[in-house]
Amino acid sequence: MVREKILEAVTQAMPSNRVVHTLGVEETAISLSKNFALNLEDVQAAALLHDIVKFEDKNWLKQQILDNYLPTDLLEFHVELWHSHVGAVVAKEQFGITDETVLNAIRFHTTGRDGMSALEKVIYVADLLEPNRQFPGVDFLREQVNKDFHKGFEECVVHSLSYLIKKRVPIYPDSLACYNDVVKGRKREE
Amino acid sequence: MVREKILEAVTQAMPSNRVVHTLGVEETAISLSKNFALNLEDVQAAALLHDIVKFEDKNWLKQQILDNYLPTDLLEFHVELWHSHVGAVVAKEQFGITDETVLNAIRFHTTGRDGMSALEKVIYVADLLEPNRQFPGVDFLREQVNKDFHKGFEECVVHSLSYLIKKRVPIYPDSLACYNDVVKGRKREE
Repeated sequence: MVREKILEAVTQAMPSNRVVHTLGVEETAISLSKNFALNLEDVQAAALLHDIVKFEDKNWLKQQILDNYLPTDLLEFHVELWHSHVGAVVAKEQFGITDETVLNAIRFHTTGRDGMSALEKVIYVADLLEPNRQFPGVDFLREQVNKDFHKGFEECVVHSLSYLIKKRVPIYPDSLACYNDVVKGRKREE
Repeated sequence: MVREKILEAVTQAMPSNRVVHTLGVEETAISLSKNFALNLEDVQAAALLHDIVKFEDKNWLKQQILDNYLPTDLLEFHVELWHSHVGAVVAKEQFGITDETVLNAIRFHTTGRDGMSALEKVIYVADLLEPNRQFPGVDFLREQVNKDFHKGFEECVVHSLSYLIKKRVPIYPDSLACYNDVVKGRKREE
């Protein structure tokens, strides 16, 4: 599907401030993708579709998880985690995205996971650091990512986990697996 | 086995400063156990034996994990986590402890886990806060635990997880399960 068609659907699917966020993710993801040999269309599709069902009804999201045999332990965690997995289903079924790399970038953009691909990492980081994001420490993370993507990615993962713990929010096991993968990788390199 | 016999074995098994730590854990655990209807002998056995194999050879610990069908994913994590699970085996086989509550308090004293018993929590907290422990924030944690054990336990779990993340140390899934259990419980109570 061409970018304009996807963007039209995105505009229908969410409030305007989230369209602005989505375009920010696209811009940042394209910039970050220069660290890797990624296909521009894949980067754009994953970025534009990452939040495609974020504003859908909670019960509808739950039904999608059940109907599509997505991990039901998601239902024990915050609804915020559901849209990523359901988004991958919708990207495939309604937007004809068949590339698993793109679908996984949508599916794991909120939690991360063990063994993330370059595109998954790019979308995860872009979602956190796109220009409209403002939170304490965001500029430090942007600097780190721009200096050394892999080191910066680790800082983003650590930031996200620390933030959730500070807020006493339950953490989905994929987020821990992502953290462990990153810090174990660092230990190996040391 | 009577306390004196266990203490004799503990003294043989570790350097003197760790015997002091072990006695500190016993003292603190007895004090904390007043929050619950716990058997004094169980508290003492779990406290005295919690580190019984901490100073054994790494290869021996690894072999015990394999020989006793303990979770082999432990081997992917720091050796610091191995002694708790192996300690429970030794407590049973060499010290004749058959009460699973005591064995679990030894087994999970380092990581915690989902659905911890009162004795498990008491040993976990006592291990962290016994009088010889000194680290930034220890007095705050002691205050919290003395004021409200459940709230204090949550603070201990959050402290431990935050410390590991700050140090970029891989985290065993049981530690996350413990954290999730505690904060989900809090959400339910709110």
